[in-house]
Amino acid sequence: MHDTDYDVLAIGDAVVDVIAPTDDALLAEEGLRKGSMRVLDRDGAERLYERMGPAQEMSGGSAANSMAGIAALGGRAAFVGQIGSDQLGTIFAHDIRAQGVAFDTPALDGDVTTGRCLILVTPDAQRTMNTYRGASEHLSVDAIDPAQVAKAAILYLEAYLWDHDAPRVAMKKAADMAHDASRPVAFTLSDIACIGRHRPDFVELVGSGRIDILFGNEDEARALARHDDLDDAIAALAGHVDLCVITRGADGAIAVGRGERVAVPAVPPRALVDTTGAGDLFAAGFLAGHAWGRPLEASLALGAAAAAEVIADYGARPLGQLRHLAAD
Amino acid sequence: MHDTDYDVLAIGDAVVDVIAPTDDALLAEEGLRKGSMRVLDRDGAERLYERMGPAQEMSGGSAANSMAGIAALGGRAAFVGQIGSDQLGTIFAHDIRAQGVAFDTPALDGDVTTGRCLILVTPDAQRTMNTYRGASEHLSVDAIDPAQVAKAAILYLEAYLWDHDAPRVAMKKAADMAHDASRPVAFTLSDIACIGRHRPDFVELVGSGRIDILFGNEDEARALARHDDLDDAIAALAGHVDLCVITRGADGAIAVGRGERVAVPAVPPRALVDTTGAGDLFAAGFLAGHAWGRPLEASLALGAAAAAEVIADYGARPLGQLRHLAAD
Repeated sequence: MHDTDYDVLAIGDAVVDVIAPTDDALLAEEGLRKGSMRVLDRDGAERLYERMGPAQEMSGGSAANSMAGIAALGGRAAFVGQIGSDQLGTIFAHDIRAQGVAFDTPALDGDVTTGRCLILVTPDAQRTMNTYRGASEHLSVDAIDPAQVAKAAILYLEAYLWDHDAPRVAMKKAADMAHDASRPVAFTLSDIACIGRHRPDFVELVGSGRIDILFGNEDEARALARHDDLDDAIAALAGHVDLCVITRGADGAIAVGRGERVAVPAVPPRALVDTTGAGDLFAAGFLAGHAWGRPLEASLALGAAAAAEVIADYGARPLGQLRHLAAD
Repeated sequence: MHDTDYDVLAIGDAVVDVIAPTDDALLAEEGLRKGSMRVLDRDGAERLYERMGPAQEMSGGSAANSMAGIAALGGRAAFVGQIGSDQLGTIFAHDIRAQGVAFDTPALDGDVTTGRCLILVTPDAQRTMNTYRGASEHLSVDAIDPAQVAKAAILYLEAYLWDHDAPRVAMKKAADMAHDASRPVAFTLSDIACIGRHRPDFVELVGSGRIDILFGNEDEARALARHDDLDDAIAALAGHVDLCVITRGADGAIAVGRGERVAVPAVPPRALVDTTGAGDLFAAGFLAGHAWGRPLEASLALGAAAAAEVIADYGARPLGQLRHLAAD
């Protein structure tokens, strides 16, 4: 008997990725730093789309990708995010539900379109992301059901949505709902530029005890803690949270907390095509393992295995089931 | 100096493919014959979509894929097809133009949506297609510009659009326009089920001299000619057209005409992921080579090379340039 309906409930961007192989020249012409994420308005997104090559569309959104990953691993996941009343919204809702993730947020009425992320993938498999959030900016606290939050073993929030008032308020309220139900709250720092825009807020958030599990990569950990040395940065952050989980790209991942410090190496991928979703699927694997009560090292290893799988194909979600990775 | 603006102008379905890996069980439950194409109405498409797993979207349409292939090979291609005024139409128009294909058909006003093709890809890389044509059914003769037809070295038509009055009339008129300008007309039989529905019409079309180059696979050639023996079938068809070009899957392809009979073997693909688009890209390679004045064997070989490329990835269009295949 579970006392939960879900291993993880996530709140995040509901966007469809528009993925095009590209060359380095377009990044240079657009003044884009490879591997970064920037936010565009609608006109900016349309202008860049005109310059992009033929693309493929796949549902995305960082936390949504993580929930799709948990479902693919055989876990129980739910997602809250705001789509518009349009074809891209239909695609987003179809894909996440078809993956087995509970998704019940009603589409927004009116002309605001579903968000999209224009992803330029260079031949070195690096992705550079350009997000037009659209309806996601309008995610409201009304979309959060306290009973659903209480029935998830972990609540997972993404920093990407911090730019907008409504979803930021919704996420903070959701964190309170989770703690009222004695559920831990996990938070991903998402992107170095997010920290640039919101560091004081994130410092307050982490310092306030609202976050129990903190996800980030090396650069994000250093930027949030303002320590150049990674170990110093992790030590500083780990003082405020139960668990600090740091990804290090090809160098693997580290978890620090509860008196433990565990590291795992990266898993060599069967191919290196598109790094989009590597962090999201790492979080999926770690969160699933952690929710299932596995030791830290096993949870990290599951994260590394799931990340290796998603970078071997285009797109930020697995193309099939990943249950074989989760076998004990 | 070219006396043409385009190597090939094609008229066909304007649809976005919705591609999902699937297992054989879903085909069995839906009563679908593997490798077939069926036409669905809107309700049927929505019902099947609900049953499909998470999908990716990529622009499709048989003749449109062929034009994208010609552009990827470095050729000059144009396409005429009917999209709706919606996000899928925007995606279709973006992708074909971004590939370098001229596409100027205005979007249809009103509520008719852009067509889509739900493609179930089984682990053996076979694709089973379920098409809701939407706006494509409404392609009208007004969309055909006689001056553009006259400026293309070859006009290419697809049998898929034969089910509907407006596009069928448009294609026949376009064939007359091409012959008025002394341009050859190529026609693909598209699918065995199309022949089932329209054999008398196709026999009349081929017998009338409106078709100069006929494309089909082995089964389609046998069904149209009503000969069980492939050589008999090809001989019967070749009596009515300048060139009869027949694909044979893993056995390669044959061209018969102008006193010649040439065969090439299939090109082994670097991977076998999704056979969607194999015939379309074969036609692209052959048509490009033929328009460039290459010998029959070289044109067949270019078709085989392009087909091998597209079946190594999901989707019916090449993910990058194919100019290296076209090098002399």
